[in-house]
Amino acid sequence: MITLTYRVETSASIDALATKIASDQSTGTFVALAGETEELKARVAARVLAIRSLPDADRPSLPEASDGPFKRADVDIAFPLDAIGTDLSALMTIAIGGAYSIKGLSGIRVVDMKLPDEYRSAHPGPQFGVTGSRRLTGVENRPIIGTIVKPALGLRPRETAEMVGELIAAGVDFIKDDEKLMSPAYSPLSERVKAIMPLVLDHEQKTGKKVMYAFGISHADPDEMLRNHDLVAKAGGNCAVVNINSVGFGGMAFLRKRSSLVIHAHRNGWDILTRHPGLGMDFKVWQQFWRLLGVDQFQINGIASKYWEPDWSFVESFKAVTTPIFSPDDCALPVAGSGQWGGQAPETYRRTGRTVDLLYLCGGGIVSHPDGPGAGVRAVQQAWQAAVDGIPLAEFALTHPELARSIDKFGDGKAA
Amino acid sequence: MITLTYRVETSASIDALATKIASDQSTGTFVALAGETEELKARVAARVLAIRSLPDADRPSLPEASDGPFKRADVDIAFPLDAIGTDLSALMTIAIGGAYSIKGLSGIRVVDMKLPDEYRSAHPGPQFGVTGSRRLTGVENRPIIGTIVKPALGLRPRETAEMVGELIAAGVDFIKDDEKLMSPAYSPLSERVKAIMPLVLDHEQKTGKKVMYAFGISHADPDEMLRNHDLVAKAGGNCAVVNINSVGFGGMAFLRKRSSLVIHAHRNGWDILTRHPGLGMDFKVWQQFWRLLGVDQFQINGIASKYWEPDWSFVESFKAVTTPIFSPDDCALPVAGSGQWGGQAPETYRRTGRTVDLLYLCGGGIVSHPDGPGAGVRAVQQAWQAAVDGIPLAEFALTHPELARSIDKFGDGKAA
Repeated sequence: MITLTYRVETSASIDALATKIASDQSTGTFVALAGETEELKARVAARVLAIRSLPDADRPSLPEASDGPFKRADVDIAFPLDAIGTDLSALMTIAIGGAYSIKGLSGIRVVDMKLPDEYRSAHPGPQFGVTGSRRLTGVENRPIIGTIVKPALGLRPRETAEMVGELIAAGVDFIKDDEKLMSPAYSPLSERVKAIMPLVLDHEQKTGKKVMYAFGISHADPDEMLRNHDLVAKAGGNCAVVNINSVGFGGMAFLRKRSSLVIHAHRNGWDILTRHPGLGMDFKVWQQFWRLLGVDQFQINGIASKYWEPDWSFVESFKAVTTPIFSPDDCALPVAGSGQWGGQAPETYRRTGRTVDLLYLCGGGIVSHPDGPGAGVRAVQQAWQAAVDGIPLAEFALTHPELARSIDKFGDGKAA
Repeated sequence: MITLTYRVETSASIDALATKIASDQSTGTFVALAGETEELKARVAARVLAIRSLPDADRPSLPEASDGPFKRADVDIAFPLDAIGTDLSALMTIAIGGAYSIKGLSGIRVVDMKLPDEYRSAHPGPQFGVTGSRRLTGVENRPIIGTIVKPALGLRPRETAEMVGELIAAGVDFIKDDEKLMSPAYSPLSERVKAIMPLVLDHEQKTGKKVMYAFGISHADPDEMLRNHDLVAKAGGNCAVVNINSVGFGGMAFLRKRSSLVIHAHRNGWDILTRHPGLGMDFKVWQQFWRLLGVDQFQINGIASKYWEPDWSFVESFKAVTTPIFSPDDCALPVAGSGQWGGQAPETYRRTGRTVDLLYLCGGGIVSHPDGPGAGVRAVQQAWQAAVDGIPLAEFALTHPELARSIDKFGDGKAA
């Protein structure tokens, strides 16, 4: 049995709406059926399990509705596994797709999804996840610390490589292409790989430390994306940024089966599903699809990010990707990013279960440190050390000059 | 140059927001750059072309905003082709994805997209489209008339085939699986194909008329979807229903390259992008991606549909899929469906440019005709004849009994 929870809003009957969702999304019919068929139909029909009332909404989530009151409730609907099977496109189509089209509702949001055990073996899940990311970076007992090459667009491979060289020397564990950088004419992926990978491999040979570089390999055409994957893999790379929304389930499923790289998921475009609290889908639901498909590392913003997302929502996203669907192996490594510089380490640590199992991604917070990226990396490591040891940053900074300089520069919340 | 038009809403500065979108979505940076790089950056930077003010919104589209006034404007932003290239996942990521995450806006909707000629040769577009759909069905000078097998879920292949036999005998041109029916255990696609295709082929042999049957082949895994495609093609089928949102760009691109079937797109889930007028994306924008990827037939609801979509929106969708992006060959065949029974023929005809180039899909409107599906099909054909000839349905019904009976039953708007 697959259970979906819909947060519905309507000025009409909540009960009738719940029944309509269950019917429309499964056996809804216009023909009278005979005995045996009626029995099968009953076996595959969706069923309303529970309705939990919520306070009325002040205004309709969809402006097409006019007269309230706008009643709200969480409705649990069960779909027999027989009706859907384990295909994720069937799950999306049957349990979610059509629900958004129903007339007479002023809001609908899918807020929970519980999958049966049959989904466990039907999907690959992450190939590397937390354990694999740690093994490949060699980082233990602290967050993996990463950074992003900027500007998003407009650097040639040689210029990108120059920056990467500096970042590698600075001691970061992880570097990524901006998600907007894939393979434009001025920086074809093949040229970028050729310029960057020797730096990564040289550094590995000299120091034993292999920086994980995530190349942007996304392409709408899975065959092209696989060619991009192969370029990276053959050059000795071990990670790729995939814009999951832009390649879709098909692109991701195709890649995962053939991939030898860590898949670092960027969720851009996701906001349109989740930003309006009365519409769309909770990240908690959406991310399950992508983890089953094979995401290893999941970008989820961070505390005090540059974007609209409030801190509580980041905390819930963090919890979502680190909560097993079936087993700890299907968890993704959470990637906290956007406006991070180390100053958010204590609150991130405190609010996410006091774990250091994350990739902590600082852009300007490392690159724009007044004493250079090397000092930037050390400042972030110091901030995390202080967070874990429960020492206030200001106090720890007294004996850690890089952190002190970092606080001076970014302490007003002006990272980026 | 690629031009996107964003309908933005904010209580802060519209100008500043426009500049921020252009910057965030392209070269946005945190490092100071040297001369040559600065020049390249300028060459790939997005640029605000125009801002057209709109009346203020009464309320914010996103409830996170509190104090108005909520200013609105349409903002045209140009992206140099060099910045994006012709990959549709890059286009989606760079020009659209991140825009939804910007802080300090209370609404953003992508309302237009103009692509340069380079996109024409970079994408396959429809393989069959309007011309191919007409050729394969042999229908000229009137709409292709289709129906759907219901219930959505819960019929075994044998029972489905029984219904299909009746529908073929009734004289329909096109029959489709409900989009929710893919390959569940009680009706595996292979069994359904085996039960249905002999009926289609027998009828073709006897009458020369090949009914186009659209089998549900969607699967999150493109390899599986292709296996489904091959099952249908090998059995002599010529059409497939694809749930485009659920397979994503990757699934669609992979399939189109290898497909010999007409691709009938079901857009379920689309509503979440378009239903709130202040958020998301106009269908006009979204459908361009899918037509370039190869959709032949596009479901777009209909006049007086069962769903939330108002008639004007259906009319705009119709116009969208039938407006060339680069040439008439890239248009999709519009599929009007949902609650249709023939009664909507005059208004559909009048409001969509007096064309009969469409697939007119009636479920209950055919199947539940009081004198059976055969009479149902004839009634719909009669309604379209009346519409084209400019004769009121009630008048035409005086000499056309099937239409008369249809009006008696469905005339109160109770098709479905």
